[in-house]
Amino acid sequence: MADSLNCDLNSLSPLQLFERVTEQGEKVRALKAGKAPKDEIDAAVRMLLSLKLSYKTATGQDYQAGLPPKDLVLINNGTTKEEDEDLVDPWNVQTSNAKGVDYDKLIVRFGSSKIDTDLINRIERATGQKPHHFLRRGIFFSHRDMDQVLDAYENKKPFYLYTGRGPSSQAMHVGHLIPFLFTKWLQEVFDVPLVIQLTDDEKYLWKDMTIEKAYEYARENAKDIIACGFDVNKTFIFSDLDYLGTSAGFYKNIVKVQKHVTFNQVKGIFGFTDSDCIGKISFPAIQAAPSFSSSFPQIFNGKDNIQCLIPCAIDQDPYFRMTRDVAPRIGQPKPALLHSVFFPALQGAQTKMSASDPNSSIFLTDTPKQIKTKINKHAFSGGRDTIEEHRKYGGNCDVDVSFMYLTFFLEDDDRLEQLKQAYTSGELLTGELKKVLIETMQPLVAAHQERRKQVTDEIVKQFMTPRKLAFEF
Amino acid sequence: MADSLNCDLNSLSPLQLFERVTEQGEKVRALKAGKAPKDEIDAAVRMLLSLKLSYKTATGQDYQAGLPPKDLVLINNGTTKEEDEDLVDPWNVQTSNAKGVDYDKLIVRFGSSKIDTDLINRIERATGQKPHHFLRRGIFFSHRDMDQVLDAYENKKPFYLYTGRGPSSQAMHVGHLIPFLFTKWLQEVFDVPLVIQLTDDEKYLWKDMTIEKAYEYARENAKDIIACGFDVNKTFIFSDLDYLGTSAGFYKNIVKVQKHVTFNQVKGIFGFTDSDCIGKISFPAIQAAPSFSSSFPQIFNGKDNIQCLIPCAIDQDPYFRMTRDVAPRIGQPKPALLHSVFFPALQGAQTKMSASDPNSSIFLTDTPKQIKTKINKHAFSGGRDTIEEHRKYGGNCDVDVSFMYLTFFLEDDDRLEQLKQAYTSGELLTGELKKVLIETMQPLVAAHQERRKQVTDEIVKQFMTPRKLAFEF
Repeated sequence: MADSLNCDLNSLSPLQLFERVTEQGEKVRALKAGKAPKDEIDAAVRMLLSLKLSYKTATGQDYQAGLPPKDLVLINNGTTKEEDEDLVDPWNVQTSNAKGVDYDKLIVRFGSSKIDTDLINRIERATGQKPHHFLRRGIFFSHRDMDQVLDAYENKKPFYLYTGRGPSSQAMHVGHLIPFLFTKWLQEVFDVPLVIQLTDDEKYLWKDMTIEKAYEYARENAKDIIACGFDVNKTFIFSDLDYLGTSAGFYKNIVKVQKHVTFNQVKGIFGFTDSDCIGKISFPAIQAAPSFSSSFPQIFNGKDNIQCLIPCAIDQDPYFRMTRDVAPRIGQPKPALLHSVFFPALQGAQTKMSASDPNSSIFLTDTPKQIKTKINKHAFSGGRDTIEEHRKYGGNCDVDVSFMYLTFFLEDDDRLEQLKQAYTSGELLTGELKKVLIETMQPLVAAHQERRKQVTDEIVKQFMTPRKLAFEF
Repeated sequence: MADSLNCDLNSLSPLQLFERVTEQGEKVRALKAGKAPKDEIDAAVRMLLSLKLSYKTATGQDYQAGLPPKDLVLINNGTTKEEDEDLVDPWNVQTSNAKGVDYDKLIVRFGSSKIDTDLINRIERATGQKPHHFLRRGIFFSHRDMDQVLDAYENKKPFYLYTGRGPSSQAMHVGHLIPFLFTKWLQEVFDVPLVIQLTDDEKYLWKDMTIEKAYEYARENAKDIIACGFDVNKTFIFSDLDYLGTSAGFYKNIVKVQKHVTFNQVKGIFGFTDSDCIGKISFPAIQAAPSFSSSFPQIFNGKDNIQCLIPCAIDQDPYFRMTRDVAPRIGQPKPALLHSVFFPALQGAQTKMSASDPNSSIFLTDTPKQIKTKINKHAFSGGRDTIEEHRKYGGNCDVDVSFMYLTFFLEDDDRLEQLKQAYTSGELLTGELKKVLIETMQPLVAAHQERRKQVTDEIVKQFMTPRKLAFEF
């Protein structure tokens, strides 16, 4: 029933859906006012809720009376986005603002919630740990249902973490580490299982790449991920190409999601067209499925109701908005989310970094010399044109990439604050700020390289073997 | 390159494609006539071949100069089919003719080849066995590349058989056995491995059915298939829901096919729409993948070049036309096919039987009494209205369902011919012909039931366990 209703509704435009919800709302009010029989009112309310759900699926926004949909196409390859709006989807991030994407606007558009001081304090109380600087500094800035995860945690109910990476090349840059560094912290303070999906199938579908190459990149990327320091007894890393052929539960969840999402929906959410291959069109279900614990029967003992929490960059949200829409219809809990901002390119915060441009970021394979040269040569500066002007008016931390990188990687809050003040006042010159960044990044990357060397093929195999983890379910 | 060309061509209508092929043909002729450089001619020929391939993919027909496409939409949910044409696709078979679908026309439209006396004689010479009565009587009437399979067989090159079933309910009828009975004969005379796909995922996607139910039907149907007498050492039966989660090779082939087929193509071939779920849209790749031996590394020792031969009812051809189009682009041999006619409903040959209407056919669970009643009550008769007229003018075997059923199940050629003459001359009455059918079907169904009882869950498990078969590769 619900399915066939949704099928009909799928053919409506967001505006038509908006009008249907409005009409139905009026009908419900009229029935209530006219004291209609209870079952008639109930049926009308059910229809109203279903219409609202369809509206939310189509637009990514909750229905608001009197506010017809307008900027929903933001996530829609941006084809009709407003002039001054940021473009954010899993394949593109574009903004004309040197400060980067306007994240407060994004929260409103995506219909997520801001991570505010209350939530951060609650995480501190629940875990007894000082919140990670990514939380304190607004790098993870938005969430969905994190309060529910904390409710459950405080009631001793288990949850698990899920994050991932699309292995598009062997070369990972420091920005790629952000979700993993944060996930590692979450895993440690909450002591929960973690699954990490490597979407090698996605990369094969999207790129001019063989299956073998995509799988090779997945294993190479796994080494960099493992080098972040994950505990093999608590972490399962999987390649889709591998795991789909070894799991009893994963494909079943994929096909369940695939049954409940139409082409119209993925067209609306991801901007697919009729010329896209059917692999791309059905792929969102493969990124959705690990949000359900029954995809990992070996970890969760076959239980299908363990809450999932997904830390990821905000551009991945469209996948999980779709997942959250489908979840109740296939009898699964909705995954909760923690969204991070994008890591800026060295050249400025207008775009996300690209693994295909070696100068756009600091790579995990860079030598100390390369790091120094890249930062000195390419890091966009918020400083003034001359030393004299800089001393007089000070630099602008809001657009200075070196300062932005330090907010990600310099853990010492006091030092960061001192640098900000010194740079803003003009006391600290651009070259001096860059030197601090170089001295921060060089040992950090070197230490990563050292740890990565320890990650043998045997260790990768251990992480990537489906198995029980150190938790009872 | 080829991919992006195909992408552009996908947006063209069949008529536009036809014109592009014609134009390119003229260009090639002009280049040759003008003695253009060899590489220029070669490039133009490659483009011509690519255009012809696109044309064939879009229309299901080979390009014929001067013959623009007209009735290609037959396979296209029939939305614009000509008035008097039969509708044949994987979900619908409709004809207004009491004799059933016009199979000669279908061969022309689908671009397949007729199984003629020469081919039947060649099968007899190659195997040293009398051809099965399904071949002798034109029940398997059409093929693709069967001559290549025989070439290979005569050169001692291996091939394998692939057939399948969509387990839509527990109840199978005698018509469902046709491909299996014929496949069993093929397996015996050629002594080759056989894989049987149970598309429980397809049934879950298309029907209002849980995953668990679809999987249960798959195992129940496996019992009826095994009861046909397959050799467990030479046959692998698999449920998609099961096997996808246990095979290293199957998903890789699925995703390869999915990369090389666009939504435009499946829309053209299967008539999918934007309101269809993404599971349906990507499913054709799952039915395609078993055509490639690398989907079964355990059977073929990882070899990816073993030729596949698919015996199936002609309505499944769209899947394999698509598969044959993709095969060379993913470096795999095209599967060969043997197509059967449809098994008629008791009520007449206008439609295929339906498992959901118990009176539309004889079911494998029917008692002797039910068989008798159904045939007497429902089998459409080609006899005359009165005994006197029948004696005088005779019956019409072409539309008589009892006679049709006997062509499927009465193996004795001489007896069948006698019955035909006696019925046509009016010597044999409808009731007498029905009696022969009843006496043919009752022991056949009873024997099947007896064999099915022997098929324990343990035996099903053996057939459905991925393993090496009794062949070396």
